Amino acid sequence: MNLPEQRRETRLDRYFDAYAARTKGLKASAVRSLFAVASRPEVVSLAGGMPNIADLPLGNLADSLADLIRTGGPQVLQYSSAQGEEALREQICEVMSLEGIAAQADDVVISCGSQQALDLVTRTFIEPGDVIVAEGPSYVGAIGVFQSYQAQVVHVAMDEAGLIPEALRQAVLACRAAGRTVKFCYTIPNFNNPTGLRQTVERRKEILAVAETLDLLLIEDNPYGLLALDDGPLPALRSFEAERVIYLGSFSKTFAPGFRIGWAVAPAAVKEKLILAQESATLCPPVFSQFAISRYLATWDWRAQIDRFRVMYRDRRAAMLEGLDAHMPAGASWTRPGGGFFVWLTLPEGLDSQSLLAQAVTNRVAYVPGTGFYADGLGSRNMRLSYCFPPPDQIYEGTRRLGEVLAEAIDVAQTFGLTTPLPLASSNPEPEN
Amino acid sequence: MNLPEQRRETRLDRYFDAYAARTKGLKASAVRSLFAVASRPEVVSLAGGMPNIADLPLGNLADSLADLIRTGGPQVLQYSSAQGEEALREQICEVMSLEGIAAQADDVVISCGSQQALDLVTRTFIEPGDVIVAEGPSYVGAIGVFQSYQAQVVHVAMDEAGLIPEALRQAVLACRAAGRTVKFCYTIPNFNNPTGLRQTVERRKEILAVAETLDLLLIEDNPYGLLALDDGPLPALRSFEAERVIYLGSFSKTFAPGFRIGWAVAPAAVKEKLILAQESATLCPPVFSQFAISRYLATWDWRAQIDRFRVMYRDRRAAMLEGLDAHMPAGASWTRPGGGFFVWLTLPEGLDSQSLLAQAVTNRVAYVPGTGFYADGLGSRNMRLSYCFPPPDQIYEGTRRLGEVLAEAIDVAQTFGLTTPLPLASSNPEPEN
Repeated sequence: MNLPEQRRETRLDRYFDAYAARTKGLKASAVRSLFAVASRPEVVSLAGGMPNIADLPLGNLADSLADLIRTGGPQVLQYSSAQGEEALREQICEVMSLEGIAAQADDVVISCGSQQALDLVTRTFIEPGDVIVAEGPSYVGAIGVFQSYQAQVVHVAMDEAGLIPEALRQAVLACRAAGRTVKFCYTIPNFNNPTGLRQTVERRKEILAVAETLDLLLIEDNPYGLLALDDGPLPALRSFEAERVIYLGSFSKTFAPGFRIGWAVAPAAVKEKLILAQESATLCPPVFSQFAISRYLATWDWRAQIDRFRVMYRDRRAAMLEGLDAHMPAGASWTRPGGGFFVWLTLPEGLDSQSLLAQAVTNRVAYVPGTGFYADGLGSRNMRLSYCFPPPDQIYEGTRRLGEVLAEAIDVAQTFGLTTPLPLASSNPEPEN
Repeated sequence: MNLPEQRRETRLDRYFDAYAARTKGLKASAVRSLFAVASRPEVVSLAGGMPNIADLPLGNLADSLADLIRTGGPQVLQYSSAQGEEALREQICEVMSLEGIAAQADDVVISCGSQQALDLVTRTFIEPGDVIVAEGPSYVGAIGVFQSYQAQVVHVAMDEAGLIPEALRQAVLACRAAGRTVKFCYTIPNFNNPTGLRQTVERRKEILAVAETLDLLLIEDNPYGLLALDDGPLPALRSFEAERVIYLGSFSKTFAPGFRIGWAVAPAAVKEKLILAQESATLCPPVFSQFAISRYLATWDWRAQIDRFRVMYRDRRAAMLEGLDAHMPAGASWTRPGGGFFVWLTLPEGLDSQSLLAQAVTNRVAYVPGTGFYADGLGSRNMRLSYCFPPPDQIYEGTRRLGEVLAEAIDVAQTFGLTTPLPLASSNPEPEN
């Protein structure tokens, strides 16, 4: 048995050869590696996706959780079912009814954040090499999960009204013609992360019609649907079609992420698979968290709380858009989101968001480079700017600092003729403002 | 596109063909399908593994969590890191020091219950077809995770001192000789679920020596180590060897399962993989739960609380062993655990624990049939009896009812000559009392 000894001496990681192939899809996300830097107090972080929860009714919440433990301790601190607490699942149906969804408590599977629901759905369907079609750009955390199950992510173009149905149709047919198995289409219909774009109702119906024609399953990821800032929520894809849509919801943006409670609503047979997967993954999702949220929904005017959040985010969005209007150089463009947390900025030609990040942080502003939101290397001229966390004056100041960085970079590029490599040919529409 | 339409009409589940092969490994566990029945008040459940947490300091906990939200709300309700809160990871090292482990906070990855740590470890290492060697019988939830990643579980015999080192060596060599890849050995050194057996210190050293010779990674799953009922905790496998052991811990049995907080301690390179896997699976483990447990550990004499639990479980174990001594028929045998939650009972020849379950429930007592604790169909003459949850008089009464069921079954078998199929040839030692 000398071979292992030898190997150990020549490798820094003795388990290097033992890891499953799926671990190769796991990379530290751009968002994560920014956390350390972006949390320094002098840096205005337009990078994170953390909701601003300072305005939650903390006193009320404190009393209510204390009462929960005093009166129900042995139950709320115990194991529970893999599907989740029935009372909370009923309340979740009430929440979803705001977007036109008619579901029963039994259709719902609770998860450790909607991230985990996405993980359970992916593990239920994906074999290595399967294709997932997803609008491009798309949520970095979803791409990460998909790659961790060795799926191939094929992006589908968006325009101002969201995912383009004809592009979806063509992408799926092309994959199938090439002998690939397309397992589902992943979409964020409301205020897509990172673009902030929302599918119109008309567009939703067209997407569902294409899915019907193609016999295609849709994953509707909806953390931001109730955070429409200019109007009310639109009907969910799931509200039109129950058998072809798996809907993912979350309390992280409308209440608080720290409880880590999200959910999936799925057709009955799929739901059974998700429950078994949940049992295997965690035995049961966080129990005390479920009771805490259930109590909050039962005792607090949560609709009014969401309205307060909307007013707060509206101010922050205004600060960001005013700042961008004032400070961005010619040739830059950006989305004007109707809700959610994010603006998607396209840099003037010749600039690269990844390579500018160090300068930006030196100038005390942070963002997320666009490449993380594509599985295929696109996005180098894009960045995601979030207006969810810092106060409005900080957001405005952040755009000013970013403007300085871009102005200098343009100066350098014009002086020395530096350009970034041309972007790859792509269906990415690079949405304009 | 008529084919999909047709398929839909001829199948109850339209997604039947779309599921990943790994879902075939997911079955509703015997434990889970018992929950509904066992929770009826007239049934004495010796089936569940729920800790009795009624004696927790609920008033103190209520005040302390309320204060946490009042003073730290925006932090304790926010997203956090995938690795988990550093303060809690430091306290976890303190907890582990009771079993001789010298680890740093940076070595720890927090999970949504230790079940999720097991899931993350398995997804990090296992390719379909890889072998995991595990003592037999072993924790049903671990076997479930392993099978969900399409591992082949090969059982290794135990005796009164736990996993048998020579059997481990032979099993691994046989697998390797057959060209199979053995990724790790899974063991529960303290009060194994379901047998209640504990590895002696001598045995632990022998197992580590075999692992060293074979260049084999060990997964040490340790939810019950601090619940030794007759003496103190023994040094963990991880206390002797840091580079060859991944240690899994849990607050579910020493504090409360409802917070869903467990952890893994792993060699540095593996730990990095686990953090990435955690980020992909949940973004971050339950945040409020982490702060809640951290506050509990900081403000309450948790060591004394564990001692109170030990006194309480000692009484329950006594009730069970007295009951079994009084009510079990000749030919039955059982383990006499030094800690943990479980007794493993072997039925007289000719009886089958699975087929007796319906009669047992009719007679208002429930248990878990033994087959769930083997990946290979063994265990039909075994049952797991837990003494963790019902009060002592109920436990005693449960053994009396079980005795009635067995006496009747023996009567029937002797009258009609019914026997169960002979057990397969196996390395299962069927530990005797």
